[in-house]
Amino acid sequence: MELNGVADLPEVRPRDDIAELVADRADLEPGDVLTVASTVVSKAEGRTANLEDYPVSGRAQEIADRIAELSGEEKDPRFAQAVLDESAELLIDVPFMLAETRFGHICPNAGIDRSNVPDHDILLLPRKPSESAERIRAGLEGRGYEDVAVVVTDTCGRPFRHGQTGVAIGWAGMPASRDWRGERDRDGHELGVTVQSVVDELASAANLITGEAADGTPAVIVRDWDFGDLEGSDELFRSVEDDLVREALREWRFEG
Amino acid sequence: MELNGVADLPEVRPRDDIAELVADRADLEPGDVLTVASTVVSKAEGRTANLEDYPVSGRAQEIADRIAELSGEEKDPRFAQAVLDESAELLIDVPFMLAETRFGHICPNAGIDRSNVPDHDILLLPRKPSESAERIRAGLEGRGYEDVAVVVTDTCGRPFRHGQTGVAIGWAGMPASRDWRGERDRDGHELGVTVQSVVDELASAANLITGEAADGTPAVIVRDWDFGDLEGSDELFRSVEDDLVREALREWRFEG
Repeated sequence: MELNGVADLPEVRPRDDIAELVADRADLEPGDVLTVASTVVSKAEGRTANLEDYPVSGRAQEIADRIAELSGEEKDPRFAQAVLDESAELLIDVPFMLAETRFGHICPNAGIDRSNVPDHDILLLPRKPSESAERIRAGLEGRGYEDVAVVVTDTCGRPFRHGQTGVAIGWAGMPASRDWRGERDRDGHELGVTVQSVVDELASAANLITGEAADGTPAVIVRDWDFGDLEGSDELFRSVEDDLVREALREWRFEG
Repeated sequence: MELNGVADLPEVRPRDDIAELVADRADLEPGDVLTVASTVVSKAEGRTANLEDYPVSGRAQEIADRIAELSGEEKDPRFAQAVLDESAELLIDVPFMLAETRFGHICPNAGIDRSNVPDHDILLLPRKPSESAERIRAGLEGRGYEDVAVVVTDTCGRPFRHGQTGVAIGWAGMPASRDWRGERDRDGHELGVTVQSVVDELASAANLITGEAADGTPAVIVRDWDFGDLEGSDELFRSVEDDLVREALREWRFEG
């Protein structure tokens, strides 16, 4: 398996065609997976905004005040409002906002970015990242690059473990996970419940190359990796019923 | 960046030398990262056990009974005892056991495996996986393979997201994470708090090759990946004070 960044991508602007930008700079092969950082997808989709666009509700003001009080640093209530606007549910409000986006991804601040945003204050995640992935995939196909899967990635922290890792938030041309249930180990014993989130693993692998800073390479090509002939599924985000941690968070309030 | 499985590793047995098994089958280069699945590390370290070795405490019996009641399936109280014995803290007891191992890794059943265990009932995680990684690293160095980092991997599920991914549980010869704080984005803005857990990302990348079943390749070589000149840190597991989800779980009880 080989991973290579797509070199020399320009700063992406609204209405840029990411498939075209990549196709102009890389030779893709059937079976490749192209990962694209959500930051550039968002920029192409014009998902930038300014804080002055967010009239502050009472709830946003209250959350911002409490976070500011706890952290001793200023917290812009308009940013809190942007997070609320992007969220289907807030799992934690203070001391930081952990939100479920409208497409099911759970991450701090609904994934809103305050760096990497030229000419605007904030960068929102793509509205429907799997549809973004599908558009890029179709755009590549239209340029003669058939059978290329596309994964839109984000980086975020997680419970229990320190630091951030790359994760998938959208995908097209491949299933999100492969299902080893019913497969057998070397000794012939059936494996337990084992669903492997391959799109997240591809996003993590790509993030080793992507990085975060000025010399970032937001698009990475994964070659010679094979999904195999296992069953696939398109579940990536846990259902509420299947997520005890989420249940626990719903009943919990931060006490400082 | 290139990843290749080490081909033709034999079934690993107690007291096998993993460095030797790998060195006999692969040409390593300075700067390579070798990932090794914890299953084979555990086997080499004799971390197999039988359920009859676990006299059942009242707590293990109670947990097993409640899990059995909730799931409608039998739950061996000796297995619950093994999980308790391997745990520093139980974050969830029912409907499944989510445990912190004695070395800080939080995962279901303290990572005890019931498949992939020839001649025994269960396979425990390595006792101190970073020491295991260090031994393998030193063993490779002793065979002339200098400057090879080693990551011991596990697969486990996580809150919020469906499916399992590869994660690191031990590492040697490199830091666990790289620290982008203070770096600047393309526009010169300082990046927010951004610590990247590269050992977890390497483990996820390797798990795309490793797989779970009979034809698994438990050792993978990552080549042409560069940590870069950022600061590193060896934090991988969140401290209790830094983990709101853990705090929430401590106060929560499953109500069925």
